[in-house]
Amino acid sequence: MTDKEKEKSWATASDVARLAGVSRSAVSRAFTPGASVSGKTRERIMRAAEQLGYQVDYNARNMIQGRSSFVGVITSGLENPFRVKLLSPIAHYLGEQGFLPILMDADDADQIAHSLQILLSYRIAGVIMTSGTPPLALAREYVARRVPVAMLNRAAEIEGVDVVNSDNETGGRLAAQRLVQAGGKRFAFIGPHLSNFNGKARCEAFVQTLRTLPGRRGEVELCNTSTDSYESGQQAAKALLDRSRGVPDAIFCATDMIALGFIDAARQRFGKRVPEDLLVIGFDDIPHARMGSYRLTTIAQNVDELAREAVDVLVDRMTDFTLPTRIRVVGVSLVERDSVGLIPG
Amino acid sequence: MTDKEKEKSWATASDVARLAGVSRSAVSRAFTPGASVSGKTRERIMRAAEQLGYQVDYNARNMIQGRSSFVGVITSGLENPFRVKLLSPIAHYLGEQGFLPILMDADDADQIAHSLQILLSYRIAGVIMTSGTPPLALAREYVARRVPVAMLNRAAEIEGVDVVNSDNETGGRLAAQRLVQAGGKRFAFIGPHLSNFNGKARCEAFVQTLRTLPGRRGEVELCNTSTDSYESGQQAAKALLDRSRGVPDAIFCATDMIALGFIDAARQRFGKRVPEDLLVIGFDDIPHARMGSYRLTTIAQNVDELAREAVDVLVDRMTDFTLPTRIRVVGVSLVERDSVGLIPG
Repeated sequence: MTDKEKEKSWATASDVARLAGVSRSAVSRAFTPGASVSGKTRERIMRAAEQLGYQVDYNARNMIQGRSSFVGVITSGLENPFRVKLLSPIAHYLGEQGFLPILMDADDADQIAHSLQILLSYRIAGVIMTSGTPPLALAREYVARRVPVAMLNRAAEIEGVDVVNSDNETGGRLAAQRLVQAGGKRFAFIGPHLSNFNGKARCEAFVQTLRTLPGRRGEVELCNTSTDSYESGQQAAKALLDRSRGVPDAIFCATDMIALGFIDAARQRFGKRVPEDLLVIGFDDIPHARMGSYRLTTIAQNVDELAREAVDVLVDRMTDFTLPTRIRVVGVSLVERDSVGLIPG
Repeated sequence: MTDKEKEKSWATASDVARLAGVSRSAVSRAFTPGASVSGKTRERIMRAAEQLGYQVDYNARNMIQGRSSFVGVITSGLENPFRVKLLSPIAHYLGEQGFLPILMDADDADQIAHSLQILLSYRIAGVIMTSGTPPLALAREYVARRVPVAMLNRAAEIEGVDVVNSDNETGGRLAAQRLVQAGGKRFAFIGPHLSNFNGKARCEAFVQTLRTLPGRRGEVELCNTSTDSYESGQQAAKALLDRSRGVPDAIFCATDMIALGFIDAARQRFGKRVPEDLLVIGFDDIPHARMGSYRLTTIAQNVDELAREAVDVLVDRMTDFTLPTRIRVVGVSLVERDSVGLIPG
């Protein structure tokens, strides 16, 4: 080991005490918020700590406080680009509050089973679950141990688990209004509207708005999918376009990935043009939506705000686990690109 | 608090000892690998622990062993789909070894500065840095504290920091061979070949292979980009295609994202068809490459193997920090889709 390395290996509180010429307990007090220690002494201790590269041992501190600096972030796989887009702002806002994210993949059964036990052992400070299929049973395990849990884009199904959702109702309404305004005649919805909280809410708002807007139009065709993926969009294209009559011309997709799969299949298998033959709106505003092959008009979720609110309700509940369940709704906005065409006039 | 909740709040080792009718130290021994405790006693303790929902306090154990179950996974932003694709297998293989990944975004200066301090305080077990721009200075901070570091797709620049790389040489060679075989006449490379380890290696192997293959052809045109992003690919299209003579027809891109940007701009701004006018090969095999609008022929990196090797060298170094620096190379493969066209005959 070189001298430089030796200098940087773990310094203990006793090393700091020796260098600062104070007692070991004075060092402890200097690193404990609210503990009694004179300004001058604290300054001397901090200087010594910096010189030695001393770090408070959070393991030790947490044993006393019964909580760590870690927050579990549980996602259902990272194939979904929207969930990936949420990760950076979640990590950022956790960092602002002094927490670090532990990444867990709910689709990886081994990792999840194992992580539950480790995280409980580490007195994890909280858990954030992103949308998708992380099982509610997992959330209940944490809640039963009084570990705060916040969920993103989920139904509020567990008492004491806060939920932060995008405004699906406004999203569905904006999509309907835009497609009517662009001259859509036959409307369709594609998404998991029978099985999925967000799919259902987006679908209902879309259908409801079309009913109330002036103008005569037929029933909205609902194409239920099993997932919110690209492949589901491709399959939906076959269901909606492989016919000689009654082909829809204005389609709202529950996610951008569905919209991309639908557009690719519509173009390549059915020779349709977007937006000339088909008007298409997605939901999410994932990075793909900006790409030249798609230029997808979509309902953008505000990931920054979703992440900030989720961290906010979680940190709140750390200080008071008995707070009533809260549901926060984050605004969405219509992003105009080329898959619906420009507003005439 | 309901009775159910009370039952599930933190049980201590003393609670387990009481229920099992053994001493507190017997409980400790039962949860310490290799410690002496009879099979019958251990069984009784384990049953009591399960009944009470008792978890070993890893915080306490780590204070003794001087190491936690956490491994930092540092990425440079999650806009790069290839880096995202690496996260799940890294989490998986860490889990297999009993570790959990703490996600850190090197592009988020606040989070990184803050995380270094917390992670050192928690006696982090190791750090994996994925490709891109996480600063080497950060790796050096960990190494100086004897925290093992492994890097993915980087140059081996720090003594004692192991590196796991994809076989860029084979990738560049496969790309050259395939483009020659498909009838390419004028060759170009697009990527950050002046500034980036991977870009440079892929470019050199491509150029070198074209020199050695039979057949007369001109110089390879090198289009240096500042990043490995979609936008860089769009800009490269302007540089290579906005001219009346000497337009290249066989292009190897350092990343899939570059290839997608290049293809979109080539089609939309310059009216080119892929593969009829332009043969294009990418590198990475991100999920986008499969999408109908691209169907990109590419050099696939083996993310599963990269992740497994990275975790492997890291865990090795936890048991012996003084091991010599190791460089492991993971194989790549050509994935045939439609951007190069089918092999004639």
